[in-house]
Amino acid sequence: MARTPPHPDTFDLQQVLEALVDPVRRSIVTQLDASGQDIKCGAFDIPVSKSTATHHFNVLREAGLIRQYYVGTSRMNTLRRADLDDAFPGLLDALITRPAGH
Amino acid sequence: MARTPPHPDTFDLQQVLEALVDPVRRSIVTQLDASGQDIKCGAFDIPVSKSTATHHFNVLREAGLIRQYYVGTSRMNTLRRADLDDAFPGLLDALITRPAGH
Repeated sequence: MARTPPHPDTFDLQQVLEALVDPVRRSIVTQLDASGQDIKCGAFDIPVSKSTATHHFNVLREAGLIRQYYVGTSRMNTLRRADLDDAFPGLLDALITRPAGH
Repeated sequence: MARTPPHPDTFDLQQVLEALVDPVRRSIVTQLDASGQDIKCGAFDIPVSKSTATHHFNVLREAGLIRQYYVGTSRMNTLRRADLDDAFPGLLDALITRPAGH
């Protein structure tokens, strides 16, 4: 468990918005929501380097949008949909259930 | 009409989010929504200088969140609630119908 990074139990709207204002991070959340299952960091379709992607995943995790855990050497990502819907009803629906680029 | 600043007819989610990620701008939108009527620029409760406030109003107007018009020398502000709800259903509800600071 020592390799599992920390996750917040409470949510701050400002921090959540700062996470979601970035289009790459919004794309990560949208892909997780669309797939309906956990996705490993290397399997997302995002136009950034691995180190930049790691930064984006950290911002999302620290804001409470995703959970991360390891399977072997793969870092997996889970969308915290229920937690977010409870803290900010309607927010994810408003932001990620529309066509990319809209 | 020459003094009426331009307003967009279409909305861009990225631009709307960049407008709403700022807490002062979110406060302006929240105050407009709560009052239910138009408010002149000088009458908002925001902790910034007049020139900074003008910048924030411009960002909100250019993103499509507010309409501005003059009454005498006062610049009035209208929340474009229906336009926004049509373009991004649920977004304003998710962002501005909660206690300040939450």
